[in-house]
Amino acid sequence: MTVRARAFVPGHVTGFFTVERGPDPAHTGSRGAGLALASGVTVAVREASGPITLDGEPIDIAAAEQVRQALGLDRAVAVATDLPLGAGFGVSGAVALGTALAGAAALDCPRPRSELVGLAHRAEVAAGTGLGDVVAQATGGLVVRTAAGEPSIGRVDAIPVAGSVEVFSRGERSTADIVGGETDRLSAAGERALATLLDDPRPATFYRASRRFGTAAGLDHPVADVLADVERAGGTAIVAMLGETVISPDGGLSAAGYDVRRVQIDPAGAALREVPDDRDGA
Amino acid sequence: MTVRARAFVPGHVTGFFTVERGPDPAHTGSRGAGLALASGVTVAVREASGPITLDGEPIDIAAAEQVRQALGLDRAVAVATDLPLGAGFGVSGAVALGTALAGAAALDCPRPRSELVGLAHRAEVAAGTGLGDVVAQATGGLVVRTAAGEPSIGRVDAIPVAGSVEVFSRGERSTADIVGGETDRLSAAGERALATLLDDPRPATFYRASRRFGTAAGLDHPVADVLADVERAGGTAIVAMLGETVISPDGGLSAAGYDVRRVQIDPAGAALREVPDDRDGA
Repeated sequence: MTVRARAFVPGHVTGFFTVERGPDPAHTGSRGAGLALASGVTVAVREASGPITLDGEPIDIAAAEQVRQALGLDRAVAVATDLPLGAGFGVSGAVALGTALAGAAALDCPRPRSELVGLAHRAEVAAGTGLGDVVAQATGGLVVRTAAGEPSIGRVDAIPVAGSVEVFSRGERSTADIVGGETDRLSAAGERALATLLDDPRPATFYRASRRFGTAAGLDHPVADVLADVERAGGTAIVAMLGETVISPDGGLSAAGYDVRRVQIDPAGAALREVPDDRDGA
Repeated sequence: MTVRARAFVPGHVTGFFTVERGPDPAHTGSRGAGLALASGVTVAVREASGPITLDGEPIDIAAAEQVRQALGLDRAVAVATDLPLGAGFGVSGAVALGTALAGAAALDCPRPRSELVGLAHRAEVAAGTGLGDVVAQATGGLVVRTAAGEPSIGRVDAIPVAGSVEVFSRGERSTADIVGGETDRLSAAGERALATLLDDPRPATFYRASRRFGTAAGLDHPVADVLADVERAGGTAIVAMLGETVISPDGGLSAAGYDVRRVQIDPAGAALREVPDDRDGA
């Protein structure tokens, strides 16, 4: 199974966000902030035709299918990830973006990066599975989305940061159920969090604003017990939107006795990975 | 010598460029394209006060001194690099950008990344030592600068690419001597190269357009013999602007018998590096 092109896309945990509906998917998205993680998704586009598979099993990810159609790509797309689906890591957006980058490379289809990111963003918005993950995953770091939409329309900045976070996941939630519903209160809380962070752009402020957002937007209750445990242990924790995942930057989860994974913050954003010339690969 | 913060900034080799003079350094810069390299500059800001040193020796890099002044940073700044100075790798811009990122972190001075990149860009332009390296080094990959200036004003895209290049360096050139002189012919050649690349955004087109630019702008003569050797051996080579450095993406330099370094393309751009809590470092 010869691999023609391969891309890595970081996972992305959103700390807070707004919902910004525009006239079309390019102008639709969200403002907010989140962390790109070195745990992510690898997308390999093969020589042979075939479906999208996740760890070997066919999987239906609408945003990625739409990217395939837009590129005219019928080659097999093999996705591998160490992240759970539906847990707030932006896996669907990552697969869409990885399919765009690796798919265009496999087809030797010359497009600037911004157009491929835009293609994946529009597909993710149209599928209803995410609003801001794709542009954040394209950027890397502690990403701040200051204007919504695909790269030619939106605007992205970052807070300089290095290091790792603790991650604890349980259960799943549907992004579509939440961002498809009534979002005024959520967006108002997201606006307040963004103003707080832009006024004092440092990692500690991101965690504080994200923690407040979770409560104000009513999105922290599925893991309220975990947040309380971490804070009783003297640590800091936030909910990954939208999932039953808790992130701690200061060892708070392990201090509270949770079985965690430690994950580096990814500074790079999505990128092609080299495919050696005469070698086969996963 | 306790390190308070550390940043890595990739080297950047420019393939082609224009000179765009605006009303101030923020609006001044260049359009063009180049490669960010995994060989680069590490900037460590120490607890103690002191000068900027390169591999232990005090060094005068005007752009970095200006960044220090703007931040009010009197701490010692220790620079380490595996790149030669004046050879077309954008080392002065890298030191300025690394000083901005690590300096702000060391001072716990909250600024969004775009402002720190802008600070380094303006310092580099004011010093006359570069026009587009800083914004490219902040981005990573095969960077295309489509509008000149600091991040709030300019515009940057990229061509998806992975892998490594061969690098051969000899001798030095002064960027200030060239970009400070008459640049109409150079900028016209740069415009043509940029139009060619945007019309067909793939790595092979970058190398072809850069090679033509070197000749049209009259900047390839110091290494014309190397370029000819590589092409006789059936390879591809371009000049790193502005230096006596030649880059080959296809093994052409080693095929022609040159003693080369192989360097990965850096996909990430400049980033803070973690400084372990209770440890000293270089």
